[in-house]
Amino acid sequence: MAGARLAARPTLTHSPAHQLSSSAAAAAATAWRRRRRRDSVSLPRGSFSKVTCSIGSTGDSKVTRVLFCGPYFPASTTYTKEYLQSCPFIEVDEVGLEQVPDVIQNYHICVVKNRRIDSDIIAKATQMKIIMQYGVGLEGVDVNAATEQKIKVARIPGSMTGNAVSCAEMAIYLTLGVLRKQKLMDTAVNQKDLGSPTGETIFGKTVLILGFGAIGLEIAKRLKPFGVKILATKRNWSSGSLPCDIDELVDKKGGPEDMYELAGEADIVITCLLQNNETVGIVDNMFLSVMKKGSCLVNIARGRLLDYKAAFDHLESGHLGGLGIDVAWTEPFDPNDPILKFSNVILTPHVAGVTEYSYRTMAKVVGDVALQLHSGDPFTGIEFVN
Amino acid sequence: MAGARLAARPTLTHSPAHQLSSSAAAAAATAWRRRRRRDSVSLPRGSFSKVTCSIGSTGDSKVTRVLFCGPYFPASTTYTKEYLQSCPFIEVDEVGLEQVPDVIQNYHICVVKNRRIDSDIIAKATQMKIIMQYGVGLEGVDVNAATEQKIKVARIPGSMTGNAVSCAEMAIYLTLGVLRKQKLMDTAVNQKDLGSPTGETIFGKTVLILGFGAIGLEIAKRLKPFGVKILATKRNWSSGSLPCDIDELVDKKGGPEDMYELAGEADIVITCLLQNNETVGIVDNMFLSVMKKGSCLVNIARGRLLDYKAAFDHLESGHLGGLGIDVAWTEPFDPNDPILKFSNVILTPHVAGVTEYSYRTMAKVVGDVALQLHSGDPFTGIEFVN
Repeated sequence: MAGARLAARPTLTHSPAHQLSSSAAAAAATAWRRRRRRDSVSLPRGSFSKVTCSIGSTGDSKVTRVLFCGPYFPASTTYTKEYLQSCPFIEVDEVGLEQVPDVIQNYHICVVKNRRIDSDIIAKATQMKIIMQYGVGLEGVDVNAATEQKIKVARIPGSMTGNAVSCAEMAIYLTLGVLRKQKLMDTAVNQKDLGSPTGETIFGKTVLILGFGAIGLEIAKRLKPFGVKILATKRNWSSGSLPCDIDELVDKKGGPEDMYELAGEADIVITCLLQNNETVGIVDNMFLSVMKKGSCLVNIARGRLLDYKAAFDHLESGHLGGLGIDVAWTEPFDPNDPILKFSNVILTPHVAGVTEYSYRTMAKVVGDVALQLHSGDPFTGIEFVN
Repeated sequence: MAGARLAARPTLTHSPAHQLSSSAAAAAATAWRRRRRRDSVSLPRGSFSKVTCSIGSTGDSKVTRVLFCGPYFPASTTYTKEYLQSCPFIEVDEVGLEQVPDVIQNYHICVVKNRRIDSDIIAKATQMKIIMQYGVGLEGVDVNAATEQKIKVARIPGSMTGNAVSCAEMAIYLTLGVLRKQKLMDTAVNQKDLGSPTGETIFGKTVLILGFGAIGLEIAKRLKPFGVKILATKRNWSSGSLPCDIDELVDKKGGPEDMYELAGEADIVITCLLQNNETVGIVDNMFLSVMKKGSCLVNIARGRLLDYKAAFDHLESGHLGGLGIDVAWTEPFDPNDPILKFSNVILTPHVAGVTEYSYRTMAKVVGDVALQLHSGDPFTGIEFVN
């Protein structure tokens, strides 16, 4: 159910051939290596770390170039530029989705965000070394085509960067928003009603976490003290990545094959799966119909895990009691889509992982990867999938 | 800082003189006493308990009458009627706020909700035995006038009914809503932005709970696993009502006199105080100005704890980073009030305690109090303040 996982800190053999040869640039690289050791992973509010590169590049041909596929998730580009602002030998650019094919040949690293990177684009990426996500979802990247062209593809594991923590908090926000009937609360305020609508508590509910990875774990840790029963599915529960106290958090564990049975017991289902060929549309008519009447669904993972028509039909029939989604079937999603007319559907703009904490920390990962590619150091903070 | 607390299950000496004399009615009262023992406090979703009274009243003059001051918080009346639906010797009515003075002489119990019950109204309540809140806040009741007229005044302690749990969940919802910039998320969805705004996590923050009572405790239990430092004020930390593991939840304890110092350390302040002469306007210019620049305030207690002008000015200057309130200065609050124009202010319609769980449980308390008054049994589930 989850995508393949490789070692957490793989070393990619590469030569910094496209880069510096001058001693000035080498000194610059040494300077940032020395200084970055002082950077703390735990970043206090409002004082995020920046790399200090005291000596500039010696020429345009020696620059390592990072392309962000814009214009969405703007803080990813802004924060990476801020992190690297004193390193002129790293160039960070952002171009709109449509311009990517025209410029990709100039870049060594591509941060895809929500751009689909297919084999046609990869064929043009003649200098590319690494295609990576600012986060974990790589469903838009043709990994096979990249592999054929000797381009490595990487994600940033969420457990290291605050992405999982941020997404878990968002899942709880959406759960509360659905249970408290966010849209009806807004209507009540505007109509000068008071003490209405009557909501539901998380307390006393049974929650199914579909795909118990880094995000699921963070959700369970936070939801347990709300007074819930937690059910969870995961392909491999014996994985070494799980903490030892998992039995205290999860009341009932299952594999992917148990998901229908567990869905039938849950009041709230939270989807935390990677999107791939196996998981697209996994929450379909069959899944929704085995869920309890009036139960709620929260999706903070990827939009197409959920079958649109099945969701629409189960909302229309009243079987699905509420839907809270941070991700949609197309993104950005049409704000006039009929599914948003249901008073028990709430949508946020794909911001589950978009927090100061998570984005500043991931900016450091991307910045460090660029510096590591530049200098030939081993990569840190990313996980390769090819 | 907190209102006076009496023993949790006080027995009020009263005679059921206004009531039944026939053996049929006495049999009815015995029947419900027998049956209510089977009622569970832990109510499963969708199957809430009802009292079964198999034998009806013998005449209008033998009826115990309960008045709900409407029209707000409608579920309180509806659920109490449902709980008592088979007990014809208890009559539950709701009238609009303005009709209360005209009919109050006919009732034995008054559930005030947001009606102000002053000495003029109390003077008319010639048959009244108990004035009570559907919850904890009694700031609208002239307790001295009631005492003079030998009317008892009671609240329903939140720790027994799910009110504290419900309010704690709402406090966390509002905290997340403010940190994730709820209004800007809605704007982003409507403008087809994606991955924006950049929010803040609860993780890593310092939270001050102002008035660490039943609600504060439930908030702390839930927020601690989010990875926060918790500060709290309380008049008396040695109270026997606190659980023994409080030191694991609260990192720094203070009295009311420490609130400015603690506010200076907090990223998020959550007000959980009762409103009384000492606490009205307690979050004023001085308090807000000692809070950190950019910090957030959440109020799920009572609107007038917060000074309106001070809040407005600190939002306008940018010192206050966000305001999430379930309660307002007048209620229902004007939806066009200028304070709601700030993009970092969110308001919910006084529903923190309004959940199925809490309201069904409190309906049972009110219903049982009516039955107890009717039969002369000791009262359960309420706390008298006079």
